[in-house]
Amino acid sequence: VHISFDALEATLDLVGIVVFALSGALLAVRKRLDIVGLMVLALITATGGGVIRDLLIGDVPPAALRNLAYLVLPLVAALAAFVAHPLLHRLRTPVLVFDAAGLALYCVAGTAKAQAFGVSPLPAAFLGVTTAIGGGILRDVLAGEIPAVLRRDSELHAIPACIGAAVAATAGALHVYGPLVAAVAVLLTFTLRILALWRNWLAPHPDQLRRGR
Amino acid sequence: VHISFDALEATLDLVGIVVFALSGALLAVRKRLDIVGLMVLALITATGGGVIRDLLIGDVPPAALRNLAYLVLPLVAALAAFVAHPLLHRLRTPVLVFDAAGLALYCVAGTAKAQAFGVSPLPAAFLGVTTAIGGGILRDVLAGEIPAVLRRDSELHAIPACIGAAVAATAGALHVYGPLVAAVAVLLTFTLRILALWRNWLAPHPDQLRRGR
Amino acid sequence: VHISFDALEATLDLVGIVVFALSGALLAVRKRLDIVGLMVLALITATGGGVIRDLLIGDVPPAALRNLAYLVLPLVAALAAFVAHPLLHRLRTPVLVFDAAGLALYCVAGTAKAQAFGVSPLPAAFLGVTTAIGGGILRDVLAGEIPAVLRRDSELHAIPACIGAAVAATAGALHVYGPLVAAVAVLLTFTLRILALWRNWLAPHPDQLRRGR
Repeated sequence: VHISFDALEATLDLVGIVVFALSGALLAVRKRLDIVGLMVLALITATGGGVIRDLLIGDVPPAALRNLAYLVLPLVAALAAFVAHPLLHRLRTPVLVFDAAGLALYCVAGTAKAQAFGVSPLPAAFLGVTTAIGGGILRDVLAGEIPAVLRRDSELHAIPACIGAAVAATAGALHVYGPLVAAVAVLLTFTLRILALWRNWLAPHPDQLRRGR
Repeated sequence: VHISFDALEATLDLVGIVVFALSGALLAVRKRLDIVGLMVLALITATGGGVIRDLLIGDVPPAALRNLAYLVLPLVAALAAFVAHPLLHRLRTPVLVFDAAGLALYCVAGTAKAQAFGVSPLPAAFLGVTTAIGGGILRDVLAGEIPAVLRRDSELHAIPACIGAAVAATAGALHVYGPLVAAVAVLLTFTLRILALWRNWLAPHPDQLRRGR
Repeated sequence: VHISFDALEATLDLVGIVVFALSGALLAVRKRLDIVGLMVLALITATGGGVIRDLLIGDVPPAALRNLAYLVLPLVAALAAFVAHPLLHRLRTPVLVFDAAGLALYCVAGTAKAQAFGVSPLPAAFLGVTTAIGGGILRDVLAGEIPAVLRRDSELHAIPACIGAAVAATAGALHVYGPLVAAVAVLLTFTLRILALWRNWLAPHPDQLRRGR
């Protein structure tokens, strides 16, 4: 069976939306919100990063308002979490794996889109990372928590995204960005994130310097 | 006396701004903020939802920066709350009624504006709801609270807005949107919100499914 | 030595970025975040206010994505805070003085930019204040705190910015805005902020009216 790169990318994009939406809805369950809370957090987590990117590069209305799947899938995911959240909590490991896939795809695709809109490499990589982690940051703020991606008790999350975005941005700057480079950047980000979860890798924090003395 | 639909709509719009601004300023009083806090929360609550909608549909500078009333009325409301907040707290019931009117008008007018900018029906309804509840969400986040609209202890708020926005969006899609449809959608939303406050209707939440077993 | 106004303004702009970034990174240290937290808070504090202004006036991509210094300097400041935060905490007074300079410059430059984009005086002054205090508000929200600028326990911050922005906006409306007026507005804001810090001036808050009786 031949699967085109575009079809694969579109599929992974939808997977990313669903998994990010589930993470928002499950946090809403944990914070004891109501069905509106589940739906809003699902929508914001799935689309927030891309919407911020699109506003910043001037692509309005943002993609999330032009493609019905971006609105409908998060609402379906929220309903699924409403009914089946105990099951989904037990599926924590597969959800984390899909979430790593979403992170990897969003940071690379976000960087490529920003470069396609004429943004230079460093800010394009920055926008790719924003695409990947922005929705989760908004999710945590709305849920009344300090964003997990900023906290020292959460495994490496933004740093794998930075590396994937840097690979994509460099390739874009050298005019060699294409399906192969994208696949390498996505796999690299995904692998680093999975390793971080598995080996419990944390980012360095300032107090380590003191304690090390 | 003949009152045109446009004049009525403009009046309700200003009423919505004042009441939303009062709700922001009164939350600032409760959170023991200073005069700057009252003014910022009043401005954000009154204009935040519309500004997010305008950014997303590409209508910049947003209406709130082109119409002086959108900036001046919230500041006046904040000063009123500064001086007279004990009185305003006692006026809780009329404030909630006007707030329901603002919610109803904003969700319908926001949907219609999004459709006028070429947004398709479902995302337009979504933007209408954002217009109606976005300011309140920003208000609560700035005040350090989980947004009331997401919490299970607050009466139906987003759901009446969704219904009104859905009516407006459907009518827009069928090319029958006009003063009559708008009035019906606004009255429907307003009535549902008032009933929810009166009968203490809450949105369903995930734990109900477990407990029901 | 002759220093042009433009060179001085550009220098003060970079100083503002660095000092705002340091305030973000130092808050991240205090909230015990990791290196990602330091970098995100540094970036958001330094660029957030200007990015909001640019989105609202339709100048996209915002200046922060077109000038590498706006991205690189905050990251360097975050690394400096990571390594040297005990020293920086001891340098609290100079940091506050530079922060007052950043506040003063941002509110005046932000107002002037908004007027250059055709925004009328009152909303332009509002956007100038947003430029000056928006980054700090986002910083505090991401760190899980009620924004300092809204709280009654923090010295006058937004009010000096309002005065500087009002001077700049009035001068712009009268077509007399230029280096001299800008310098007066910046110095006025800076002086008021420094006096507020020195004499512990707080903004009025609603409970004072009750207690005064």
